[in-house]
Amino acid sequence: MDYEAVMKLALERGFYFPSCEVYADAQAGFWEYGPTGVGLKNKFLELWRRELIRRDGMLEIDGSQIMSKSVFEASGHLGNFADPIIKCTKCNSTFRADRTIAELTQIEIPESADLEEFDNAISQNNIKCPKCKGDFDKTKNFNMMFRVGIGPEEEEAYLRPETCQSIFVDFPRLYKTMRGKLPLGIAQVGKSFRNEIAPRQSLLRLREFYQAEIEVFCNPSKLDEVEKFTEVQDTVIRVQTDSEPVEMTCKEAIESGTVPNKFVAYYLGILTEFYEKTGIDISKSRFRKLGEKEKAFYAEVAFDFEVETTIGWLELVACNYRSDYDLSSHANKSKEKFEIMDGDDKVLPHVFEISMGIDRSLYTILEHSLKDDKEHERIVLSLKPYLAPTHVGILSLVKKDGLKEKTDEIYLSIKRKFDAFLDHSGAIGRRYRRLDEIGAPFAVTVDHQTLEDDTVTIRKRDSMEQSRVKISDMDSILLESVSFP
Amino acid sequence: MDYEAVMKLALERGFYFPSCEVYADAQAGFWEYGPTGVGLKNKFLELWRRELIRRDGMLEIDGSQIMSKSVFEASGHLGNFADPIIKCTKCNSTFRADRTIAELTQIEIPESADLEEFDNAISQNNIKCPKCKGDFDKTKNFNMMFRVGIGPEEEEAYLRPETCQSIFVDFPRLYKTMRGKLPLGIAQVGKSFRNEIAPRQSLLRLREFYQAEIEVFCNPSKLDEVEKFTEVQDTVIRVQTDSEPVEMTCKEAIESGTVPNKFVAYYLGILTEFYEKTGIDISKSRFRKLGEKEKAFYAEVAFDFEVETTIGWLELVACNYRSDYDLSSHANKSKEKFEIMDGDDKVLPHVFEISMGIDRSLYTILEHSLKDDKEHERIVLSLKPYLAPTHVGILSLVKKDGLKEKTDEIYLSIKRKFDAFLDHSGAIGRRYRRLDEIGAPFAVTVDHQTLEDDTVTIRKRDSMEQSRVKISDMDSILLESVSFP
Repeated sequence: MDYEAVMKLALERGFYFPSCEVYADAQAGFWEYGPTGVGLKNKFLELWRRELIRRDGMLEIDGSQIMSKSVFEASGHLGNFADPIIKCTKCNSTFRADRTIAELTQIEIPESADLEEFDNAISQNNIKCPKCKGDFDKTKNFNMMFRVGIGPEEEEAYLRPETCQSIFVDFPRLYKTMRGKLPLGIAQVGKSFRNEIAPRQSLLRLREFYQAEIEVFCNPSKLDEVEKFTEVQDTVIRVQTDSEPVEMTCKEAIESGTVPNKFVAYYLGILTEFYEKTGIDISKSRFRKLGEKEKAFYAEVAFDFEVETTIGWLELVACNYRSDYDLSSHANKSKEKFEIMDGDDKVLPHVFEISMGIDRSLYTILEHSLKDDKEHERIVLSLKPYLAPTHVGILSLVKKDGLKEKTDEIYLSIKRKFDAFLDHSGAIGRRYRRLDEIGAPFAVTVDHQTLEDDTVTIRKRDSMEQSRVKISDMDSILLESVSFP
Repeated sequence: MDYEAVMKLALERGFYFPSCEVYADAQAGFWEYGPTGVGLKNKFLELWRRELIRRDGMLEIDGSQIMSKSVFEASGHLGNFADPIIKCTKCNSTFRADRTIAELTQIEIPESADLEEFDNAISQNNIKCPKCKGDFDKTKNFNMMFRVGIGPEEEEAYLRPETCQSIFVDFPRLYKTMRGKLPLGIAQVGKSFRNEIAPRQSLLRLREFYQAEIEVFCNPSKLDEVEKFTEVQDTVIRVQTDSEPVEMTCKEAIESGTVPNKFVAYYLGILTEFYEKTGIDISKSRFRKLGEKEKAFYAEVAFDFEVETTIGWLELVACNYRSDYDLSSHANKSKEKFEIMDGDDKVLPHVFEISMGIDRSLYTILEHSLKDDKEHERIVLSLKPYLAPTHVGILSLVKKDGLKEKTDEIYLSIKRKFDAFLDHSGAIGRRYRRLDEIGAPFAVTVDHQTLEDDTVTIRKRDSMEQSRVKISDMDSILLESVSFP
């Protein structure tokens, strides 16, 4: 199933839809999660907490989205965080230089290239405005941060373009008050904001989006002293340094020098194990090692975790070894002390970052889980049961003869514990198909026999197999299936 | 324990602290949740979902924080959402007119009063600038929304000042795609933003803050046809219409006319039941019925849920019967259809809102739970076990003789399932006291006997009672206590 099929599902079944859609001035790049989308997102994050945060004993914080100007002077965003844009001198339309050139000529220029490279490509290939055929002005840098004015004097502050800056700025207090010991992971889930010139493809390029970022602080002289490495040494990761991804264990990745140290390999390993549990097809994934021009301006070594979809490879996670770039920048700018004691060493920690795009991850889960079951004329969303927004539909076969009341009673008894959907109306087959589309692993149907012997029919989403079970056994059947692994 | 004691705990134990604190240009009114604060907040929200959202079969969405100008033209925020401010003609400092007058003269003027009332109070009482004794200019309205410019042309949009606007704007799609039936609750948790002139008292008046808002859509002709009312008819609520709160059951509230209908009384009932489970002392709460001048501009009937703390009564929830103000405003402005069919009635639903301040609720939970246990020379945070950021501390009595390894093994076996904190260093008494301060209901200590018979000491936070239990029984002991009720 392709992007269009996922989009149809998203719009019709409450996964996601455009923000402010009833208004003509709705802006591109802003989307809402509907009820099924929120359910999937919350469960995805619970899995992330279990498999990364709690597993590794990390700390999670939740900081302000609006941050001071100094933060972004130190981080380099006010200077460097810009897209190359070109403006038509005739119709005043603005475009991303790199994308417009790529679309019209197939020439790929990295977005971080010198501005002259874009100007040269435009003049050499005689590129004109796609809207009006007018000439382009010289390429400019457009800073992607949203400015916000604080108080009546409108003091300068910004919506954060990445969640990690609060982690860096808060590091001295967190390390001290939380009894930190290196290596220490600090994580944050939340919104980030980028004033994209050309937002597109719903959740895939947003102006307001969700990140789950992990910053692991470490002693750079101990990157191969990682006790926990044994937990993942046999975990298979797929790394691409050249033209094709190659499967190797974490241990082999170290021995072959493909991954620079045990510290980085450990996190690539647990990240792979996490994504396996999301239901994404890991055989379609790769850690792609980035070249010099592609890397973010702060990264020393970088692997992008990418997954293949019907619209190409999607970057779901950026794994950057940021060295001491962040802490030394903030230490210099703020004059605060960011060094800490690691045993007897005084050290300014280095940082390895696991920067996850939540929206893209959810899209990929949906695309990889959506099946067109032609044999049974149905669309099925085969989500892992623990990620399903609705665990179970509770249906009355008909409303009369006391079946409605019995059904309500069953729903009441489980609704605090499970995500249940009560449904009394419509043909039963249509109700099953709707539950299949939102990925509910179970449907429970109450019929006349229920009134006689307190049994119900339980139908499984993937196999469509139906069996009669006692109402008193329902709870344990559901619990076993929908509990996190 | 008072505000200062809670603040000390918050700063030293990772509950919350100021944003961007290492920088001189850190702005007031922005705070971060540290790891213990995030734990408490996530569990509070899980309780909110269980006791309000799932209990009532509501839908939860998660919309954009940046919304279009049209939304706030329709909602009235661009016209009405303003604070009265006064500016000193000499030193240019700006103040909230209502607060400055109240602080200097004890005269209380509602913030929504006519601007002339403030000017009159200032001239009659000869009020001067508290900073420089200069004269004030005339009172002005200062709109509290943060403006954001979208795209290279900086098109006008705003950070939402309340989460509910997306719920109203999204209502037509949600009602249709989610098979809605009135009454239907739609909820959202997220950040809202208000450019307060005088943010203060940490979590209590923020510029960026968390709301959990519920909008219940209903047929205004059926406000007393509420089947579920029987669930809460005997629930005791505390309502204040006059000078003192009066205890009454929901049924009595209806019969006496104190609450206008069963629909509103039902939600006041389940809200009270929710707050009881948070550990807030309900005997210090009240639903205060608001007078005409106090109500928000869109409210027809309003009750504020307030709780007494050491710094006075705090408003935790605003319960507003907003009638069809919101849907008709958006329908008029957008020209979209917001009416729906309720049985055979074509109806523009009315809205009852339960607008919860999360930050203030968490502050109140902390203040009501914090105890100075003088007898044992300790501070104890007696959180409900299911809200505790850390469920259990796992401690080795000493590190040597294999106790460290045994302790690590126990920690490993439970860390995905429980929020556990591993601690090997420091005097055991000090480690216990630290766990008491973050509200961990249990501490498990591994000693030499553990190596012999696989038992550990389990210490309870509130009673300080210690007992020896088998390691194999630990899981069920913890689970029984920390599971949601």
